[in-house]
Amino acid sequence: MYIIGIDIGGMSVKGGVVDQSGTIIYKASVETKANSDDYRVIISDIAFLINKLLQHTNLKITDVKGLGMGIPGTIDSVKGVIVYSNNINFINVPIVAEINKHFNGLPVFINNDANAAALGEHRFGSAKDVQNIVFVTLGTGVGTGIIIEGKLFEGKASAGAEGGHTVICVDGEPCSCGRRGCFEAYASAVALVRQTKAAIAENPFTLMKTIAEEKGKISGRTAFIAAAHGDKAGIQVVDNYVKYVGEGIVNLANIFRPDVVLIGGGVSNEGDALINPLQKYMDGHCYGMQNGNPRVLVKKASLTNDAGILGAASLVL
Amino acid sequence: MYIIGIDIGGMSVKGGVVDQSGTIIYKASVETKANSDDYRVIISDIAFLINKLLQHTNLKITDVKGLGMGIPGTIDSVKGVIVYSNNINFINVPIVAEINKHFNGLPVFINNDANAAALGEHRFGSAKDVQNIVFVTLGTGVGTGIIIEGKLFEGKASAGAEGGHTVICVDGEPCSCGRRGCFEAYASAVALVRQTKAAIAENPFTLMKTIAEEKGKISGRTAFIAAAHGDKAGIQVVDNYVKYVGEGIVNLANIFRPDVVLIGGGVSNEGDALINPLQKYMDGHCYGMQNGNPRVLVKKASLTNDAGILGAASLVL
Repeated sequence: MYIIGIDIGGMSVKGGVVDQSGTIIYKASVETKANSDDYRVIISDIAFLINKLLQHTNLKITDVKGLGMGIPGTIDSVKGVIVYSNNINFINVPIVAEINKHFNGLPVFINNDANAAALGEHRFGSAKDVQNIVFVTLGTGVGTGIIIEGKLFEGKASAGAEGGHTVICVDGEPCSCGRRGCFEAYASAVALVRQTKAAIAENPFTLMKTIAEEKGKISGRTAFIAAAHGDKAGIQVVDNYVKYVGEGIVNLANIFRPDVVLIGGGVSNEGDALINPLQKYMDGHCYGMQNGNPRVLVKKASLTNDAGILGAASLVL
Repeated sequence: MYIIGIDIGGMSVKGGVVDQSGTIIYKASVETKANSDDYRVIISDIAFLINKLLQHTNLKITDVKGLGMGIPGTIDSVKGVIVYSNNINFINVPIVAEINKHFNGLPVFINNDANAAALGEHRFGSAKDVQNIVFVTLGTGVGTGIIIEGKLFEGKASAGAEGGHTVICVDGEPCSCGRRGCFEAYASAVALVRQTKAAIAENPFTLMKTIAEEKGKISGRTAFIAAAHGDKAGIQVVDNYVKYVGEGIVNLANIFRPDVVLIGGGVSNEGDALINPLQKYMDGHCYGMQNGNPRVLVKKASLTNDAGILGAASLVL
């Protein structure tokens, strides 16, 4: 039996046919027509993508156990409605019903993309079968997915688990959600670029400047590369960034006390240079560590490139 | 059938015999000998208290369905062990086994006092039968108790739900847990007193000064009383305090998206003067309010004086 996983992003819709062991046997993508006035344009592109996946794998729709979709934004997974997705201009889209117009009777499951990714890591990834997981994606934004006793925790109307939108610096940097000082405003890749830019402006001789000029832009990698070469200002940017991410994940650990905090998203590709100091931060700051409270591990998420498709597929299982 | 609820505090151990409807038919207390070297002294005092409760109600121990105990600190409710209770100098105390030495076969349930109080509000209080609750006590510290779908959420080894120890101001005021800038360090009654003191020092003509002199001390009430009389500096202290509490509860609401955030602890006695501006803060700042996310209500906890006993009793139900 096969599952189809669909990962709707701001730039592209990725889809894959996945078997029960978590192997993607075929994948493809289409451009996301995010600026279309009519959401049915995107739905029809998704239907096209699904048909393409079926054709290339010689499967009929009846061979498919179900379709899972991970979508950025606020998703009501029970009603099957995209409540609000800022990136794709979806407001109150009954996407499950719309997909069923194209594929009548196909079981369709939707969820927030970070939630889906958390479930993917729990099913197939670096926290396989771990029961309590806080998954944090450090990408354009900061998303969080929470697994409690093997089940996704979403809050009422799937509107919880918004760990990126918890303030860690009252009156701090403005956040896209309208508050100031959110975890996202300090720990996203966008925030890291902002922090790197500020450090370059203050340190005319930092290696970060040379790297940025060579690469043609300042990225989330710039400070990490400079730091690896011993650049003092680069090390300071990384240390500072680790501190912000650390404060955010210790907060989440004190609330959920999971077995593991998984770090995903673009910045997680820094690997040990990010994960090791975060583990140290967790060990030094998590509540009651000196009094017998269990240790919380920090690990890199492992599904990276295919996290979206495998996470979406996990929604069906 | 009756239940005994025991509330272990830093100053006294309170106990009550509770019927299934949540009525306390008799209550009594003993002093907490918190500085005793031997925890068995306190256990033996608790046994004395239980016997006193039984005598005054003409009950035999076999008439009691079970004993619930709410205890400040880190409690392993599954193992029946007080892992760490700073206030009472309890470290790794197998309290359930110890109580059973006195009352063989009596079912004993223990939990963190804030968790127990949350459960009490869910069973008998102002959130009776509400399924998703974040309970926040604003007292000497800031405790949080979380109810998800009618069940207490504790995290691994009961070490989660420490919402008071989530940083809202990186590098901010020092907290008893060793971090800086925790919610507790800004929103506890102790923090409110500190904020009031600072405002009095800056404003020699504030009504807060007169009130403090009259009452003989600066308390968590001082600023609220002054604010009610239109004192500008008092209003500013209250507004500022509401903002800190607001940031903390919006954070918790974004994570759990409960039906209601209940406010308990000493400061909650300010009633509408605290609850109304907090509701406004919640409505203005909670994630996705403008995009169809459900509203989170802010309410005062209702069990106040008997919260400890009724919360502890709820652990048995």
